[in-house]
Amino acid sequence: MKLATLKTDSRDGRLIVVNRTLERFADAPAAWPTMQSALDDWARARDELDALYRALQAGAVAGRALDMQRLAAPLPRAYQWLDGSAYLNHVELVRKARGAEMPAALLTDPLMYQGGGDVMLGCRDAITAGSEDHGIDLEAEVCVVTDDVPAACALTDAARRIQLIGIINDISLRNLIPAELAKGFGFVHGKPPTAFAPVWATPDELGDAWRDAKVHLPLRTWVNEQPLGAPECGVDMQFDFAQLIAHAAATRPLGAGTIIGSGTISNRDSSRGFCCLAEARMLEIIAHGEPRTEFLKFGDRVTIDMTDADGESIFGAIEQTVTQR
Amino acid sequence: MKLATLKTDSRDGRLIVVNRTLERFADAPAAWPTMQSALDDWARARDELDALYRALQAGAVAGRALDMQRLAAPLPRAYQWLDGSAYLNHVELVRKARGAEMPAALLTDPLMYQGGGDVMLGCRDAITAGSEDHGIDLEAEVCVVTDDVPAACALTDAARRIQLIGIINDISLRNLIPAELAKGFGFVHGKPPTAFAPVWATPDELGDAWRDAKVHLPLRTWVNEQPLGAPECGVDMQFDFAQLIAHAAATRPLGAGTIIGSGTISNRDSSRGFCCLAEARMLEIIAHGEPRTEFLKFGDRVTIDMTDADGESIFGAIEQTVTQR
Repeated sequence: MKLATLKTDSRDGRLIVVNRTLERFADAPAAWPTMQSALDDWARARDELDALYRALQAGAVAGRALDMQRLAAPLPRAYQWLDGSAYLNHVELVRKARGAEMPAALLTDPLMYQGGGDVMLGCRDAITAGSEDHGIDLEAEVCVVTDDVPAACALTDAARRIQLIGIINDISLRNLIPAELAKGFGFVHGKPPTAFAPVWATPDELGDAWRDAKVHLPLRTWVNEQPLGAPECGVDMQFDFAQLIAHAAATRPLGAGTIIGSGTISNRDSSRGFCCLAEARMLEIIAHGEPRTEFLKFGDRVTIDMTDADGESIFGAIEQTVTQR
Repeated sequence: MKLATLKTDSRDGRLIVVNRTLERFADAPAAWPTMQSALDDWARARDELDALYRALQAGAVAGRALDMQRLAAPLPRAYQWLDGSAYLNHVELVRKARGAEMPAALLTDPLMYQGGGDVMLGCRDAITAGSEDHGIDLEAEVCVVTDDVPAACALTDAARRIQLIGIINDISLRNLIPAELAKGFGFVHGKPPTAFAPVWATPDELGDAWRDAKVHLPLRTWVNEQPLGAPECGVDMQFDFAQLIAHAAATRPLGAGTIIGSGTISNRDSSRGFCCLAEARMLEIIAHGEPRTEFLKFGDRVTIDMTDADGESIFGAIEQTVTQR
């Protein structure tokens, strides 16, 4: 099934069930008015939401026309948002770009940062920045959403806690990051609010493309309608989502509705293109001595989408415009 | 006024108004069943909650007897928890202890990390750890709670966004931190859930002790009922809470219910004692070549409290026992 959240007067919006082709929706049952309420009570909510989804698919429930403009992030504010960095090609290129050393245990110990969950952007919300000088960059990623995860949970249990899948734009302010990470305490200034595609889907919606706790499909990105890349999410992912969850939960439980990001999708085969501008710039520096791709400017448009084998969008597209605060 | 949250079957508990001496309470009006709902609607909620507080103080509302054992954290899960490190004496001692360099812009650029807000501990909840080898340590701090803070807010506006004040135990696993911070992405393993004193108080409850966006009172800590320290929170605080909020909001808005921590209270005058064990150990290493104070063991008890000029507890005490997972 596919779930989304309508913007309403409430900060948490209204949970809706969306049909497979993202054209129609129905309100979730009154027992679960918001995405968080459903995740808090997932064992019960899942079955009832799924029954409504099947009725919507079968036409037994007509539903209403879906307007992407009216969508909030599936979870408009989240109690826990942790972003891994599972594609080591990305780690290597962006660290090279800022002259930082590679972590010693790169292959066995995932990089992961804790993000701000209090303000999550919807699929059409603007990317707002104070200055172009901050080095505004997209980062296209896959995310998974868990119900309750016990502390020190085993890998097999971690895999079972993945209830929903989505795609995100983990917006970065590249020029603020080197000084911030040198302090060792992670990102505060470098990571403004993250944006989410219209819907979250249960893993079964991806069919064979969801296996081994990875998504085996390309993630496509465009800047100003020009293709930037389509790296394969199942390729070069050093840590699968079960490993990322187990890492996050090593010393503490994770609450229902925890969002775990993959890190920017990145393949060693650069002919697949990119899910962020920093990688393109680093390869240009290596090839030409200087970057030729600019970071995002005010007015630029970013599009991120993932389609299935039939070319149908699974989560709906992220379409954002960069605006000045 | 003073506010707390009763544990209930709901993950968010039940918001209550507590009298000044922390003996009696009344349920908050039905319009604000939880702390988050009050913070979301603070301008309206504050006045009604304050009216109930005054009625409770005057005896016009009898209230019921308060049992600290039944309290959750004031906000049992928070969308945003950011912890500063405003006491540079603490920064210097713990960095020396782990052989890390001091940040270059220490005096002007606050250290701040993003913490996990999905699981917050109540004042009597256990400190749970997997192993004593992790180096279990308390960190006694002051925190403030904001309503909505716009991105890039000015310092004067940041000060006005402070609605509630509390004290916390930002529990640390010291032996996991050096490897984690070397990666640059902040804390995941090193910071299990944070614990909160029974109530949050509005700034007026502190009288003259709240000025210049700092608390001017000692924070007292004990381990197994033996005093560990009573450093003055108003002394050696390099960044006040308005500066910490402005730092946090430099490139993004902060949602209502954002919690901002001071970092471990620490005075250059070591005769004031300590709010964490790591500092005591570092001074022992300097004096004797090795630490004599051990980190917390299973069964150890931690107490943290702040009293007013009359010796009355302002927020109620944190009293936790360390237990094995």
